[in-house]
Amino acid sequence: MKSTTEDIHVLEQIFEQFYAVGITGMGGVTRLGYSVEEDEMHRIFRELAEKEGFQTYTDEVGNTYAANEISNREYYLIGSHLDSVVDGGRYDGVAGIIAGLMILKWAKENHLNIPLRVVAFRCEESSNFGRCTIGSGLITKRIGKSEVECLESRDGKSFAEIFKERGFSMDPAKIANVKQYLELHIEQGKVLEEYGMSVGIVTDIAGPRRFNVHIHGEAEHSGATPMNMRSDALCAAAEFILEVERIGKDESHRGSVATVGVIHAKPNVLNVTPGEVTLGIDLRGIEDESLELMEKRMREAVTYISAKRHIPFFVEKTSAATPIKLDAGMQKKLVDCAERLRITYKIMPSGAGHDAMAFAEITKAAMVFIPCCKGVSHNRNEFTSLESIYDGARVIYEYLKREGETYDLSEKRESH
Amino acid sequence: MKSTTEDIHVLEQIFEQFYAVGITGMGGVTRLGYSVEEDEMHRIFRELAEKEGFQTYTDEVGNTYAANEISNREYYLIGSHLDSVVDGGRYDGVAGIIAGLMILKWAKENHLNIPLRVVAFRCEESSNFGRCTIGSGLITKRIGKSEVECLESRDGKSFAEIFKERGFSMDPAKIANVKQYLELHIEQGKVLEEYGMSVGIVTDIAGPRRFNVHIHGEAEHSGATPMNMRSDALCAAAEFILEVERIGKDESHRGSVATVGVIHAKPNVLNVTPGEVTLGIDLRGIEDESLELMEKRMREAVTYISAKRHIPFFVEKTSAATPIKLDAGMQKKLVDCAERLRITYKIMPSGAGHDAMAFAEITKAAMVFIPCCKGVSHNRNEFTSLESIYDGARVIYEYLKREGETYDLSEKRESH
Repeated sequence: MKSTTEDIHVLEQIFEQFYAVGITGMGGVTRLGYSVEEDEMHRIFRELAEKEGFQTYTDEVGNTYAANEISNREYYLIGSHLDSVVDGGRYDGVAGIIAGLMILKWAKENHLNIPLRVVAFRCEESSNFGRCTIGSGLITKRIGKSEVECLESRDGKSFAEIFKERGFSMDPAKIANVKQYLELHIEQGKVLEEYGMSVGIVTDIAGPRRFNVHIHGEAEHSGATPMNMRSDALCAAAEFILEVERIGKDESHRGSVATVGVIHAKPNVLNVTPGEVTLGIDLRGIEDESLELMEKRMREAVTYISAKRHIPFFVEKTSAATPIKLDAGMQKKLVDCAERLRITYKIMPSGAGHDAMAFAEITKAAMVFIPCCKGVSHNRNEFTSLESIYDGARVIYEYLKREGETYDLSEKRESH
Repeated sequence: MKSTTEDIHVLEQIFEQFYAVGITGMGGVTRLGYSVEEDEMHRIFRELAEKEGFQTYTDEVGNTYAANEISNREYYLIGSHLDSVVDGGRYDGVAGIIAGLMILKWAKENHLNIPLRVVAFRCEESSNFGRCTIGSGLITKRIGKSEVECLESRDGKSFAEIFKERGFSMDPAKIANVKQYLELHIEQGKVLEEYGMSVGIVTDIAGPRRFNVHIHGEAEHSGATPMNMRSDALCAAAEFILEVERIGKDESHRGSVATVGVIHAKPNVLNVTPGEVTLGIDLRGIEDESLELMEKRMREAVTYISAKRHIPFFVEKTSAATPIKLDAGMQKKLVDCAERLRITYKIMPSGAGHDAMAFAEITKAAMVFIPCCKGVSHNRNEFTSLESIYDGARVIYEYLKREGETYDLSEKRESH
């Protein structure tokens, strides 16, 4: 490793290569999964890796890899993604890829004796197809062909058609020989910033349970309908929103959160009482028991408010994922590395979903978070300092260095 | 007057002429103010009147009149409107015009000796320009040019441009020679229905005070932001909505109502906490003191919730109209007429605004309500029976008959 200044200059140069892709008039970037903008991001990634002398290839679903060796040996895989939400920021996903390239460079310079690959997954965001982590999901067989073939892009193109045009396969061979999976990602929250910590060592990835709640009141003239003759769906919704907030707060000691992120009211005009309201609810937690309790309490609130106000509610469960545990042994070692490097850290869960989820199901997986300014993400104002990317990369590199010390040993042991 | 059956058949034929104009795929009608659909409604009105031998004309702002004589004599004016809300019903406004045509026909058949005109006002609903009673407001000078010239239609066309294209004037001569103004309208509430009464004799028209409330929280990742680090604008809005409901209930003994009819949340997606919410609030009452108190309490709620949640609220008052008293003498006579005809009635305020407001400021004005099914209005399911329109029209005709008995007398007295 060279001086910090030199390394940060390298990170900056890599970051700048990606800067203008999918730039919007508003200052952010739009790089949807399986779009030409995402293609361009992958092309740049490949070019950057090849310029440094690494081997590159694309798998059957379009994920791009850069490797210090390609062999049948088990390898360490560092992954993240290069797509973005609509008018999103430049760090979500990209930070992990930049860190991966830096680590690959350090490994080469220092003759690190382990097979190492960096992968840029396709379509991690749900912005284009309403479904997230498609590239990592397909290649690990976490997501099957039947779950994607019926999807449609934002502009109405079928997923199957897009794959056919590009020569990709919705039923690829499962990725093999991954010894361990590591991912650096921006936190997308403000916990690290509030605690003043440089990196987060992730323990679990929360499982979201999602619901649509439809509330059916009566649309009536707001001037001519006395208060005691109303069935106002928005007032019923307001009571429910506050109850969902209360449930989230009551379960926050277990790291859970509860959010009403979406509201649509009809007819939504000033002179009519709201007749219909639809809400989108997102419950997340790292403990199944907590998720179960939150859902139960949410349903009780529906029953109670509905009966009290004589307004029917309909609850539609749209998705439910179980929380995922990352590898405890890897966490412990990453903590040791951070301590050795005197980089401050916080052991924490991830509320957001990541590509690591798919790999946690087939191998040992770990994640390192870095802070992002005010927790802002999925937004053009997203910002992370290059110093943060550098710190996160150093923790992962330190980890790999220690792995390298025993890699041959374990290889030999396994071949016995 | 012929038999009830014959008269109701006439009402039905008139109703059917208007039926299909602006029909939507969903069963309702969309006839926005100053749109081609409203033009068509006015054309049909004119045609119907001319077919019956009445004189017709259009004023400088596009309101259409049918008259049994056009002279310099003071005339009785029966008015309502022919525009609708988006996907609205077929009775709001139209019922008053149908009744007017029926009354004009009766007056002719019975050689009623008073000058009588029926007017269809333009753009009574606020659905197209966010501003109501434009046609009646402009012609009575209740609304000035400066209040309309900056308005924009739903599809982004300027009001001034629309007026220029049609050769209308935003600064017309004030309507003259109106002796008295009468309006039949559907109640748009369910008070008459709940009380089982055939007509309502209106005492006052509530004054609406309208506000936009902007709530500025933080849009953050719904999975990665712990409950205690959030500034959720929708939760703050929910608390406020329930407080507005409480204020309305507390003031309902004075006939006041309070409604949050509009809500817009940003970014309004499932995985982000709502960063911004805008609410539209409508307070209505027939007592200034009650309106004043409701506004005061609403502002106190803003201060309290904003301080408690550390989330800024901005209150923008968009309009404030004072409640309007209709003519007490006319009310008394209308009550006598209903009693004489053995038509059940209820003396009541109007929570909704009407074209009558503009005329109450320049002459004597009265209103007769008829029930509408379940109080549903501003909605494709709006329904009023032709029998109800017939009953309301009879009360007004009876009133005019009695006026006719003294009309010449008063004319002569005045010309002395």
